[in-house]
Amino acid sequence: MDEHYTMDQNVHFITLATPDLDAARRFYVDNLGWTAAVDVPGEIIFFQVAPGLMLGLFDSEKFDQDLGTAVGTAPVRASGLTLAQNVATRDDVATTLTAWEAAGGTIITTAQEAAFGGVFHGHVADPNGVVWEIAHNPTWRILAAGAVDLG
Amino acid sequence: MDEHYTMDQNVHFITLATPDLDAARRFYVDNLGWTAAVDVPGEIIFFQVAPGLMLGLFDSEKFDQDLGTAVGTAPVRASGLTLAQNVATRDDVATTLTAWEAAGGTIITTAQEAAFGGVFHGHVADPNGVVWEIAHNPTWRILAAGAVDLG
Repeated sequence: MDEHYTMDQNVHFITLATPDLDAARRFYVDNLGWTAAVDVPGEIIFFQVAPGLMLGLFDSEKFDQDLGTAVGTAPVRASGLTLAQNVATRDDVATTLTAWEAAGGTIITTAQEAAFGGVFHGHVADPNGVVWEIAHNPTWRILAAGAVDLG
Repeated sequence: MDEHYTMDQNVHFITLATPDLDAARRFYVDNLGWTAAVDVPGEIIFFQVAPGLMLGLFDSEKFDQDLGTAVGTAPVRASGLTLAQNVATRDDVATTLTAWEAAGGTIITTAQEAAFGGVFHGHVADPNGVVWEIAHNPTWRILAAGAVDLG
């Protein structure tokens, strides 16, 4: 690990409660062409989404069980968060939103100047309602050592 | 970037709707000793939490505005997800949970064998209800190139 990170300040997994794991697989694997690191039908799908980072889509009922929460009548779903993917140009924002919509996503906001942060972006939800921000930030870059420079 | 990742399969930011940004700052910065990459009071705090990955705690009202959502009477908060931090030993799980509780967190599950995944873990919520999984997974490791080996 780089000296910029401490063990204490790391995220190694993001796990999202997922009501419809099959719909998630169709969207990310079949339609967007992502590669799963692990795929256990009915339980969880892992994608590596950054160096050292796994995104886990975890069946909602098992998510509740894992947390010791009583399983409710309505499946728990991830909300109040966005996952962001930065793209190389402003034009790539609209192109990516359109591609994700064609794959089965739902556009939430079209490509536009962001209200905050000085980025150009739009939002698209996956079939389970997980909102992705597709963004172009002209000053953002990942340094060689993996440090993030926000410009 | 490593050849194991494509631009398409990357997460660059995780952004969480945060009702009480000052409580988050006290917890992560003042009490846990984390270093913020950017801190804009009343708006957002960024932490680098993996190579190339930022965790953003975003004021709930601004989170809604950014998504074009009407601001509700109850502030939106992140739910239905966990962020996981892997620690070096089984004993470190309980030690870390206790330290996070002392910093102002709330223990959700004590250190125990997980129902799924073959890990030893426990869960602790931050002051905004964001649930962290503190885990020891004896077969997990990050390879030199940043690829994750789940064992």
